[in-house]
Amino acid sequence: MRRPIMLGIVGDSAAGKSTLTGGLVNLLGADRVTHICTDDYHKYDRKERAQIGITALHPDCNYLDIMEQHLERLHYGLPILKPVYDHSNGTLVRPEYIMPKEFIIVEGLLGFYTRVMRQFYDVKVYLNPPEELRRIWKIKRDTTKRGYTAEQVLEELVKREPDSEAYIRPQREFADIIVTFYPPKGVDPAKIDGHLNTRLVLRPTIPHPDFSYLIDNRAENSGIRLELGRDMGKPVDILEIDGNVPEEEALRLEKTIWNHLPKGVPPLNLDRLGRYLDRNEIKHSHPLALTQLLLAYHLLRAYDENATIPFAPPVDALSRIRRQRELSLKEINTEIKRNG
Amino acid sequence: MRRPIMLGIVGDSAAGKSTLTGGLVNLLGADRVTHICTDDYHKYDRKERAQIGITALHPDCNYLDIMEQHLERLHYGLPILKPVYDHSNGTLVRPEYIMPKEFIIVEGLLGFYTRVMRQFYDVKVYLNPPEELRRIWKIKRDTTKRGYTAEQVLEELVKREPDSEAYIRPQREFADIIVTFYPPKGVDPAKIDGHLNTRLVLRPTIPHPDFSYLIDNRAENSGIRLELGRDMGKPVDILEIDGNVPEEEALRLEKTIWNHLPKGVPPLNLDRLGRYLDRNEIKHSHPLALTQLLLAYHLLRAYDENATIPFAPPVDALSRIRRQRELSLKEINTEIKRNG
Repeated sequence: MRRPIMLGIVGDSAAGKSTLTGGLVNLLGADRVTHICTDDYHKYDRKERAQIGITALHPDCNYLDIMEQHLERLHYGLPILKPVYDHSNGTLVRPEYIMPKEFIIVEGLLGFYTRVMRQFYDVKVYLNPPEELRRIWKIKRDTTKRGYTAEQVLEELVKREPDSEAYIRPQREFADIIVTFYPPKGVDPAKIDGHLNTRLVLRPTIPHPDFSYLIDNRAENSGIRLELGRDMGKPVDILEIDGNVPEEEALRLEKTIWNHLPKGVPPLNLDRLGRYLDRNEIKHSHPLALTQLLLAYHLLRAYDENATIPFAPPVDALSRIRRQRELSLKEINTEIKRNG
Repeated sequence: MRRPIMLGIVGDSAAGKSTLTGGLVNLLGADRVTHICTDDYHKYDRKERAQIGITALHPDCNYLDIMEQHLERLHYGLPILKPVYDHSNGTLVRPEYIMPKEFIIVEGLLGFYTRVMRQFYDVKVYLNPPEELRRIWKIKRDTTKRGYTAEQVLEELVKREPDSEAYIRPQREFADIIVTFYPPKGVDPAKIDGHLNTRLVLRPTIPHPDFSYLIDNRAENSGIRLELGRDMGKPVDILEIDGNVPEEEALRLEKTIWNHLPKGVPPLNLDRLGRYLDRNEIKHSHPLALTQLLLAYHLLRAYDENATIPFAPPVDALSRIRRQRELSLKEINTEIKRNG
């Protein structure tokens, strides 16, 4: 029995978590990925939050202990009965039975908030778009899918800012990869017509592919740069991929990641790599494709590594019972031998 | 930290589980008892059950694995997010956060169905009224509280009979105490106007109080009898308490149970002992009072015993973290000592 591989994606509201998750589900195959959104662990519904005067970002507004318990169960491949928060009308509804598949993507606001939660992820990603871009994304989504007016969204953003600062952004510290999609310099994020740049902060907390060829490849217009830097004061690699990166440079980086993939891992659905929807038109972005590929690489690497690591489930009721049954079988066999 | 004491009450639909539970909650005090009904773990709502053609009694109609998981958590004093089934309209609704109190009463249809579940109870009770009496109780309850007609209830009883036989009644085998309230011989259960007799089957699986004085006390009209017997082929004590037991005999048995209670256990709300509602009139029944007292005795005995048994929670995420923190503190202390 192989335990599932778990990816955590954390970021503020409308930071692009669901979009990134959706792309990865397509890439790995929906039949192999379980997708969990931690908004389902809200303690209060929309009406109650307004009455109490608490935002959904506050730890006290979420059942963090139940999240911990469920993440542990999923980590060990065990089923959960997950609560369900209905975003379309802001109510808490009938829970849903989840049996984890090979890969689990957990996305949400407070996924790295406690130490207990953090230990269950194989890969941890923090999404960090510039605030102007996030504001645009949030207005667009909340007015079309969640029944808010633009004014309400802007008001909510102001109300939420102290909690974003206090509880969401500090989780950046625990990420293995920090992903920032951002408009090129001087371009108004509201009017961008083309591809966003991507900055990937790579912490040496997980084994990233060897990108050292980029250190010697400092051509002016290569569109991809690897630089040493600091994030929250600690050393990191910073991988910059421009929206207008030349095709051959993008393919070279793609191949580099590809070459690091272990043999015998499950195939990817590469036809949908890097696709995104822009005003009802399907477009392709190299920075997006490379980001998705790097995350898939880490999941497949962990998946492969995992095959050789002995799987030790917790000493729970089920394992105690299993042991009792094995013992009985052994005793029966001993009896059989004894009696010739 | 003292782990909660858990009582399981299992029996068919309308066997009197909630009534018995309600009495015990009053006796022990609502602030010290957590009451769980396993109907909340239904996999399908009323409409879906009708469509699929499955009864609520069938194991496949319930999330038994989630029940196992939650019983384990409660057993170790850990919180759960419990699903909720609304009996008034037969729908599954928003779950409820439960932090277990000192005593937990788990009542339901399939509470002793798996071996994993059974290991978490301190005391296991099976309710076994005669079928004629249960039918009357079920019609009365389902027509007044659950929106069914009498015809629908009778139809449902016929539909459910194979599952009662296959899944509910076999659980009798695992009970420490089997409780049967029944009308005196020759009295029509529909017309009974007075107290029911009680038969308590006491399995030697838990340490019952010493009732040996009853063996020598074989007066014709004592109203209380202790007899050796067999239940499902295995030896048991059978304690019979008549509805019209003389006051002094009832008080003598009460005192006997009382004398076995360990010192220093929490007090009981004795003013409500043995009370029941009969056509909007509050009545008192000695057999009911003695049954409640015997169950309370077992809970308090386990509660007392538990104070001397080391509490070993499962090796879960939280305990791992706690251990890490302790280690750090130790290391800090070592450092302090080293530096004088």
